[in-house]
Parts: sequence; structure tokens; C-alpha cells
Amino acid sequence: MKELEDRIRRDGVVKPGNVLKVDGFLNHQCDVALFDDMGAQWARIFAGKRVDKILTIEASGIGIACLAARHFGDVPVVFAKKTQSINLEGDQYVTTVYSFTKQREFPVIVAKKFLAAGEHVLLIDDFLANGKAMQGLIDICTKAGAIIEGIGIAVEKGFQPGGAMLRKAGYDVESLAIVTSMDSETGTIKFA
Amino acid sequence: MKELEDRIRRDGVVKPGNVLKVDGFLNHQCDVALFDDMGAQWARIFAGKRVDKILTIEASGIGIACLAARHFGDVPVVFAKKTQSINLEGDQYVTTVYSFTKQREFPVIVAKKFLAAGEHVLLIDDFLANGKAMQGLIDICTKAGAIIEGIGIAVEKGFQPGGAMLRKAGYDVESLAIVTSMDSETGTIKFA
Repeated sequence: MKELEDRIRRDGVVKPGNVLKVDGFLNHQCDVALFDDMGAQWARIFAGKRVDKILTIEASGIGIACLAARHFGDVPVVFAKKTQSINLEGDQYVTTVYSFTKQREFPVIVAKKFLAAGEHVLLIDDFLANGKAMQGLIDICTKAGAIIEGIGIAVEKGFQPGGAMLRKAGYDVESLAIVTSMDSETGTIKFA
Repeated sequence: MKELEDRIRRDGVVKPGNVLKVDGFLNHQCDVALFDDMGAQWARIFAGKRVDKILTIEASGIGIACLAARHFGDVPVVFAKKTQSINLEGDQYVTTVYSFTKQREFPVIVAKKFLAAGEHVLLIDDFLANGKAMQGLIDICTKAGAIIEGIGIAVEKGFQPGGAMLRKAGYDVESLAIVTSMDSETGTIKFA
């Protein structure tokens, strides 16, 4: 998606250690007009699919998923939680994933009442690198018996294994920008 | 806002200990059409105010704030983070708040580059009870020299002190539903 690639080129910052900071428009400060365009693009890409619900994970996926849902007939958005809460009692699907950016394991939690067997689900997240968070959402869907129609990613780091792993497993992964290489010294970012 | 009150009456669940669960449409599963209507309502209420930016806090505020921003001319949404990350280096505004639902203290973090002195800010969150999270956002704005134009809340628990505290301090707090009492035995919920 040219608009997203142009924005990454303009406002993205490459840091040593393969870190791409897009916090100016994607995951700390949010450009909602861009999010809306991203949602429209996923709606075009996944037009032939049945989508009953969008599943994402807190925190950065939520805004993107909520604006995308408007383009899928206002389907409900469920966001997986990463911490237990006294307000989140009752039957839950829980799995555990490792975060490289947070450098620790965390739980991925969805209340069972919000994901039913046979529901057709679109998974959405802001980033795909090693695919750990997405694997957590897939585990949750598998436990629930939900049907994964596709995976919408804003920015995929194509040089890390998450995308290849998910596509090899048969998932329809649609990343709006796939970074193939980046250089923290020159700031150069290349896309697929 | 009648639509939100009706929805709370229909789908909200009152639990012992003054817990009101609205996770079916507000803060675990999200009804984006409702969020859009809430955003339109805040835009009417705050119509005379200058809003350069919407500030909220992860995670439940994000979806609401992103849909609201569409009604404020697509202003940027900044969400305060509750955990440090290797992707969040650099100058930050940080304060600490206590969460009753999580039963622990947590940091509230906003990168300095996303909140500037003199910016006119609308604060948005899903819930207002004791006002601790909102006080954290206010602290951040005070440190930044940002001007708080108003505070938009989805559900205020009117029998807890947060709303009164903020209004006494002079803030324009606009809660779309104010619960004045609730009863976990009968499930009754009364609004202001």
C-alpha cells in the first residue's frame, strides 16, 4: 500500500538491532485517517471472505482494528488482553507468548464468550516480525474452534521469520507494507 | 446519551464490589458503531473548543479515542503507555497511578515529542471511577504544558469520587453515561 510505504519512508526511524520505529503514526501517536485507508484496503483485499469478527491484541492493534471494522460492516472487534484483571473473571482462553520488544513472556487472554466455535475471524495487528503475538491469537482461535479467514498486518518485517512461517502454515497473510531491508546508518528502508 | 445508557442496561452486568462489566461492547469486545456515535456526541458537546489532539491511555481508551478523532477533523490520537519498551526510548513524560482493577501501581508514559506546550488536548477514556488514570493523563499534560480543553468519558461511576474531584478542579468533564447507583443482587442500574 503506497500510502503506508510513503509514510514509513517519511516518518519511520530505523534504529540499530532491526528496530523500526513508527510511533509517530502507528503505535503511540495514531493517524486515524491513515488507519481508515488501511481498513478500506483490507476490505478490498478480503472482499470475498466472510468476516464475523475482528480479533486483535492490545494495545497497538486496537485502533487499527476498530477503524478497519467500519469497512467490514461494523463487525465486533475483540482485543486480547495481556494482563489479568479482577474485571476479567470467568472462562477464558489463555496462551503465552514471548515479546522481543518487551523482552518477557506475557499471557494472551480472550474471554470465551467473545469467541465462538465456527465464527469467521479476521486477525489484525500493527506489526509482524517473529510472529509470536500472531501465533498467540491463532492458538486462541484454535482453542475456540473459530475459523481464521485471514491475517491483516500493517507493517511486516519481511526479513524476520513470522510472515514466512504463517504463510507456510496456510494462512492468508496480507501485509500492507513489507520491509525487506533497512539500514540504521543511512536510514534507508526498502519494501517488497 | 440514551444509546449508551440503553446498551449498559441491556448488556452491562453488575458484580459485587461496585464492579460494572461492560466488556461485551466497550472494553474487551468493542461495538465500533456505538463508538462512532459516542465520538459524534462528544464532537457536538465540545463543538466550541479547539482540539489539536486526543490523548487517551491504553488499552480500552484507544478504540474509543480513534473513532472519536474522526469527528474532530482526524486529529492525532496519542495513547499513553503503561509499560516500558525497548521501542520507547528517549525523552518521556512519566507519572505513576494506582489501578483498583489491576490492584497495583503502573507507570503512565508519553513520549515528549508527541505532546507539546500549548497544544489543545481532549482527554478520552472508557471509565471514570476514582479518577486515578485520568489524573495520570492530567499530570502528563501539566508536565508538557498542554492545555486541557475537556475530558470525555464513556461511563462515569457517579457514586465514586473521580468525576466530582475533576469538576471541582475546573475540568469540563463530559460523561456520556453517569451511573448513580447499581445493585448486584437485582442487576438494577440507575443513571443521572
